[in-house]
Amino acid sequence: MNKWKIFNDPVYGFITIPHGILYDIVQEPVFQRLRRIGQVGMTYLTYPGANHTRFHHALGALHLTTLALNVLESKGTLINKEEKEAVCIAVLLHDLGHGPFSHSLEGILIDTNHESLSLHLMEELNIKYSGRLDMAISIFQDKYPKKFLHALVSGQLDMDRMDYLNRDSFYTGVMEGKIGFDRIIKMLQIVNDQLVIEEKGIYSIEKFLVARKIMYWQVYLHKAVLSAELMLVAAVNRAKDIFLQGSGRLISEPLKILFEKSWSDNHNRAALLEAFIQIDDHDIMMLLKENVHSNDFKLQLLSSGLIHRHLFRLVYQKEPFSQEYIKKTEKQIANYYTISSEFANKLIWRGKEQTTMYDSMQNEIHILEKSGDIVPLSKFAGSDYIIQDTIQYYLCFPKMDKLQVAGTNT
Amino acid sequence: MNKWKIFNDPVYGFITIPHGILYDIVQEPVFQRLRRIGQVGMTYLTYPGANHTRFHHALGALHLTTLALNVLESKGTLINKEEKEAVCIAVLLHDLGHGPFSHSLEGILIDTNHESLSLHLMEELNIKYSGRLDMAISIFQDKYPKKFLHALVSGQLDMDRMDYLNRDSFYTGVMEGKIGFDRIIKMLQIVNDQLVIEEKGIYSIEKFLVARKIMYWQVYLHKAVLSAELMLVAAVNRAKDIFLQGSGRLISEPLKILFEKSWSDNHNRAALLEAFIQIDDHDIMMLLKENVHSNDFKLQLLSSGLIHRHLFRLVYQKEPFSQEYIKKTEKQIANYYTISSEFANKLIWRGKEQTTMYDSMQNEIHILEKSGDIVPLSKFAGSDYIIQDTIQYYLCFPKMDKLQVAGTNT
Amino acid sequence: MNKWKIFNDPVYGFITIPHGILYDIVQEPVFQRLRRIGQVGMTYLTYPGANHTRFHHALGALHLTTLALNVLESKGTLINKEEKEAVCIAVLLHDLGHGPFSHSLEGILIDTNHESLSLHLMEELNIKYSGRLDMAISIFQDKYPKKFLHALVSGQLDMDRMDYLNRDSFYTGVMEGKIGFDRIIKMLQIVNDQLVIEEKGIYSIEKFLVARKIMYWQVYLHKAVLSAELMLVAAVNRAKDIFLQGSGRLISEPLKILFEKSWSDNHNRAALLEAFIQIDDHDIMMLLKENVHSNDFKLQLLSSGLIHRHLFRLVYQKEPFSQEYIKKTEKQIANYYTISSEFANKLIWRGKEQTTMYDSMQNEIHILEKSGDIVPLSKFAGSDYIIQDTIQYYLCFPKMDKLQVAGTNT
Amino acid sequence: MNKWKIFNDPVYGFITIPHGILYDIVQEPVFQRLRRIGQVGMTYLTYPGANHTRFHHALGALHLTTLALNVLESKGTLINKEEKEAVCIAVLLHDLGHGPFSHSLEGILIDTNHESLSLHLMEELNIKYSGRLDMAISIFQDKYPKKFLHALVSGQLDMDRMDYLNRDSFYTGVMEGKIGFDRIIKMLQIVNDQLVIEEKGIYSIEKFLVARKIMYWQVYLHKAVLSAELMLVAAVNRAKDIFLQGSGRLISEPLKILFEKSWSDNHNRAALLEAFIQIDDHDIMMLLKENVHSNDFKLQLLSSGLIHRHLFRLVYQKEPFSQEYIKKTEKQIANYYTISSEFANKLIWRGKEQTTMYDSMQNEIHILEKSGDIVPLSKFAGSDYIIQDTIQYYLCFPKMDKLQVAGTNT
Repeated sequence: MNKWKIFNDPVYGFITIPHGILYDIVQEPVFQRLRRIGQVGMTYLTYPGANHTRFHHALGALHLTTLALNVLESKGTLINKEEKEAVCIAVLLHDLGHGPFSHSLEGILIDTNHESLSLHLMEELNIKYSGRLDMAISIFQDKYPKKFLHALVSGQLDMDRMDYLNRDSFYTGVMEGKIGFDRIIKMLQIVNDQLVIEEKGIYSIEKFLVARKIMYWQVYLHKAVLSAELMLVAAVNRAKDIFLQGSGRLISEPLKILFEKSWSDNHNRAALLEAFIQIDDHDIMMLLKENVHSNDFKLQLLSSGLIHRHLFRLVYQKEPFSQEYIKKTEKQIANYYTISSEFANKLIWRGKEQTTMYDSMQNEIHILEKSGDIVPLSKFAGSDYIIQDTIQYYLCFPKMDKLQVAGTNT
Repeated sequence: MNKWKIFNDPVYGFITIPHGILYDIVQEPVFQRLRRIGQVGMTYLTYPGANHTRFHHALGALHLTTLALNVLESKGTLINKEEKEAVCIAVLLHDLGHGPFSHSLEGILIDTNHESLSLHLMEELNIKYSGRLDMAISIFQDKYPKKFLHALVSGQLDMDRMDYLNRDSFYTGVMEGKIGFDRIIKMLQIVNDQLVIEEKGIYSIEKFLVARKIMYWQVYLHKAVLSAELMLVAAVNRAKDIFLQGSGRLISEPLKILFEKSWSDNHNRAALLEAFIQIDDHDIMMLLKENVHSNDFKLQLLSSGLIHRHLFRLVYQKEPFSQEYIKKTEKQIANYYTISSEFANKLIWRGKEQTTMYDSMQNEIHILEKSGDIVPLSKFAGSDYIIQDTIQYYLCFPKMDKLQVAGTNT
Repeated sequence: MNKWKIFNDPVYGFITIPHGILYDIVQEPVFQRLRRIGQVGMTYLTYPGANHTRFHHALGALHLTTLALNVLESKGTLINKEEKEAVCIAVLLHDLGHGPFSHSLEGILIDTNHESLSLHLMEELNIKYSGRLDMAISIFQDKYPKKFLHALVSGQLDMDRMDYLNRDSFYTGVMEGKIGFDRIIKMLQIVNDQLVIEEKGIYSIEKFLVARKIMYWQVYLHKAVLSAELMLVAAVNRAKDIFLQGSGRLISEPLKILFEKSWSDNHNRAALLEAFIQIDDHDIMMLLKENVHSNDFKLQLLSSGLIHRHLFRLVYQKEPFSQEYIKKTEKQIANYYTISSEFANKLIWRGKEQTTMYDSMQNEIHILEKSGDIVPLSKFAGSDYIIQDTIQYYLCFPKMDKLQVAGTNT
Repeated sequence: MNKWKIFNDPVYGFITIPHGILYDIVQEPVFQRLRRIGQVGMTYLTYPGANHTRFHHALGALHLTTLALNVLESKGTLINKEEKEAVCIAVLLHDLGHGPFSHSLEGILIDTNHESLSLHLMEELNIKYSGRLDMAISIFQDKYPKKFLHALVSGQLDMDRMDYLNRDSFYTGVMEGKIGFDRIIKMLQIVNDQLVIEEKGIYSIEKFLVARKIMYWQVYLHKAVLSAELMLVAAVNRAKDIFLQGSGRLISEPLKILFEKSWSDNHNRAALLEAFIQIDDHDIMMLLKENVHSNDFKLQLLSSGLIHRHLFRLVYQKEPFSQEYIKKTEKQIANYYTISSEFANKLIWRGKEQTTMYDSMQNEIHILEKSGDIVPLSKFAGSDYIIQDTIQYYLCFPKMDKLQVAGTNT
């Protein structure tokens, strides 16, 4: 009998999972649930291929971790069987705490972040598996002595990031975001318990940082993607308000619990966790579909906009928007939709997006020079330019065209 | 300003749609709805990458049609601008009548087929667009004089099939199903109003037929895929029965209408069509999720099985299953689940799947020999072997293992 | 320091070779020589991308062998370190005895086959490496007890074939020839010392056999490819005759030795082997280039034809060519080139090409059924059709058109 | 009958060439000759896949030109049939003047550059084709009024560069060098007779510039690639000196002419051009092979080094090498090879390599802002960092290890 299970993966060809605890965890309902959570939220409205899931991403990150462990071992780093399994579990479960639409609704549906939820869910699994996830949790929390294991799970060059850039680039079809993950992984090494990259991999790193920047502006912060995300957040918040006011349409039971209770109150946590693992993208999509014909103007506008893809207009510019410009827009919207200026104002969102190509403050990439010295990337000769920010200000507001109206009437 | 809209496509790189009626149709809610309908139903439970949608498939088929039209024109076939637009519209809308989970629930949710629904929806659009879809509808129904235009929409080598084999192979990661669509398209020609393929494309055709067969057995009829499909049909039917009996959990309004009314009664059609275009995969997924804890044993077993991926066991064999074998299985299931034999019997499904590599009866592929003669593939020397059937009998029934129980308890 | 050397490979991404004897062998001049021997001879005249070399193929086959060994080990087959290295060496060197233009000139330049020369050259290396190639040679000759190791080097599913189909398909751009090598390799298993393939890999095997057939007719036996090969053989034979008659143009010293001596005389072997490893595609290309202006009509016609790509016309048909047809062609050529009929006759080549999709006589593929039984593919239900021959007769002769004349005048 | 000829291309799938003058030119011996000229010289010694030719590159650049012309036309730019054909001819022939090993031996074998030779050869063809290349030559020389046509042939975003980056990245397997050529081409536009790129293509441009830089340092200036190139130049120069001294081994006749005559003397040009189009990589490879056993120490060391791949060691550093370091190396080499210090000095080469990511001085990329303004990339907000140089100093000298000696003894 085979000792492993094979998953087809358009990105890597095949992903192999050994039978044993890793495969058992994959079969857990709490993990299978990730099949119903899109990796990049509403991005499919802009990039129609981007329907990939957190489930596939988790398997992909596991796959890359296996490759990285093989490389490190072949270069003489000692990693025992338990550690290998533990780091694989930690990678597999690193995103377990993601809910519907992943980052888009993070902190909105439940007032905590996904890492914290991942940890809670891992601990629940650990009880079921009689402590066999102890080491994985320790690595996940960066409490395990061999620090480089945590760096594979979370860091500038972790396997999570390596997979999501790869996978998001693949499924969106934005080939500029493709990274040379195999080359980067082949250049990894452990020196003094630290994950470093051999000097000859420097161009792959440069390419990796540029690709990441491109993915941000061409995908994650693409104006239509960001617009849909802002609309989604506003729609959910509005639906919640209306629900809490006691009216509103059909909502699934677990979603009601999330709307009613706060995570900051410790007494709620068990119930919230229980509810949380029952909701996924489908609950939110049904909420939006139900509200395409809502009596509430704002909720109706947002829901039908998201369902029929009549997205708000989002404009980027290098400088903050002037008060005049905003006021003018407010007036136009008020006229167009025959609503008050105050109300129009609530349909105009402004903000700032910023990307850092490489943040030397946070978590350096360490280069192993041919001489044997280890140098942080920010100090590596000729790399100054990569420490560079891009800032854009945005204004987002309802479109004012026939189509929009057609959409809202449907 | 650009005269066309570009969509990124992982399969073809870019898909370009000219501004005008084609792009306007893409923006219609009834077309946007295809974004919420998976191309291959529950296949993602077996091939986790297969989350692609009917929306992307329709765009892909349109893209291939554009390529084919260019090839045919470059070989001297006259196709005027209106005809080009019409055949593009027909291809774009050929699957408009698909509902939740596409083929899996075809005929189950609404008692007619998707082609008929496509036609009805095209006719509705035609009214909105003041008759501008007349020629497209004529081509779709094969009433247009230039018969080869219909062959591009529906036939042995139509652009629909070309795209779905391509796309399903790509997203499942089953590379054996990849076809040489570009070479086939370059070999197309029109002779006497008939779509033919040049002789030197014969190996591409052979490869195409084998790839199609492989896609059937490795994907569309894969035992876990078929099992999930049978479970889905059974779950929806059971949920419908329970609903009609007046009980049951949360169901969306339009789904209720589909459950209550029959298409065969002409009076219902307007209401059914209105409801039909409001439902999609999310309605069905929520129905299943709601019923993970149903009081009805069968519905609970099926719903939790689909949601937590505890699929029924499906066994294929070359001969029909014997009554003894079925009886024995019935008894085991009755024991395992402590239910009656009669009830167990209703959880055992048997059937036959058959594929024909190439059906010479139905719709021949015509080869243009170097001599100028046109020969149907079934008469083409050395091609006998491709007319070959594969038949498999299946038995499908609940798994009897701990995991299954664990699943149902969660 | 790294323990292995990485080669970039467009086909597999990276090929890793461990430092040690494998890497040392790669650096041997006799192996480096394979960089100067095209994998598929004159095929680049038809498929301009097909400039890949025996060197890269040997590395590729080694890469696949490494993958296969990992799969087999993971399924419980015991293969010790020495055996692994030995089978890798055997695969790496299996084509060492190929000379200029590989198969095209096999038996022409030296009157023995490439396997025999591979063995001689491996034995020479074995002396230099003090017997460290003993086991590799034993596996290569199928004398080693664990028979399945030889099957990886030479058999229906060997790593040589797997790589060359893959690589030739990749570089020619004939995507129809692509095989699912990774899936096939993942399905390999050893049962009773025999290499078998798991039943669920049956579609990959089917695809593999069809892809192989396609590669034969679309590439290896493509009419322009075969024509160039026949011309090359005729040109070299003619140049040899002229050289042995004491005249002729510039020829490299080692090539002279090959022209003068016969391998069947044992006394010549040392000198022939010494000369053989010094010649490569460049010697033959220079021979052709030198003879573009030869005084000998036939040699001039062939050389200029190959250099300026004015290939002979090659016609395939299902039946042998009639004497009438051949006579008529002879007369046309005699007229066109103003030569005698006897001479014209020598410029007309006829022959037969036959491919067997799967030869059950020679070397069966063994299927491991789910039941545990092992069944040869030819007995496997539903596989009858794959045992099928394709036969084509060809006639090849000089083109009679202006271009040809223009070419010969240049 | 088909109106065009199809070439398979692993990079783009298919390249289509219309019958007519373009296809006739492809069949010219002077163009077919490009099949025997490697695109990237000795790079295959480092990247074994890099055996692609100038022939395939020329076809590839033609393919991209066709795509670009379609895009520009669809955006309203008027380009008549003659202009289209002319720009295609200019692109197809832009590298016609390349000789053996392309850039590596440019200026070495014949004392002029390849552009000048391309022009001479185009003019010769123009005579044969009775002036039908007039417009193509005018575009090539940038004398044609519609300036943007020349920009497609030669400029920051020309189709030559687009193809070679693409193709070299593909065949070397250095995926970091992959560029989004299809997206860039789709973003091209003509404004006021100037080739510009739409603002939303800015990330593709950024990626393009980074990819180009990576290709320089990872491929074109890779230390082993540069070492082989320096060795090749030194070997050819040395062989020429020895030949001119009246001794030396077998050399092809046309190569002798190149060694003997100078292009700067106008009387020689006809003979030189005649000789030039007869030589290719094979003449040089045979020259090296002949000299593996030369009596001349330097020529023997270089020739055997290139043939057996014992490359000189090349060290890069950010600062110029000190005199001390060079002297020390000189002494070591003198000792190791038992030669004089003066002679050793001639085996040590030093130099500087510099790349400019984007040279705003030379030839700007022009961005078409959403506002309609055209801004040079160097003035485009946030793009400062791309104007950045990388400088490396190198020292290159014979290796001093056993292998080297082993190599020279073979």
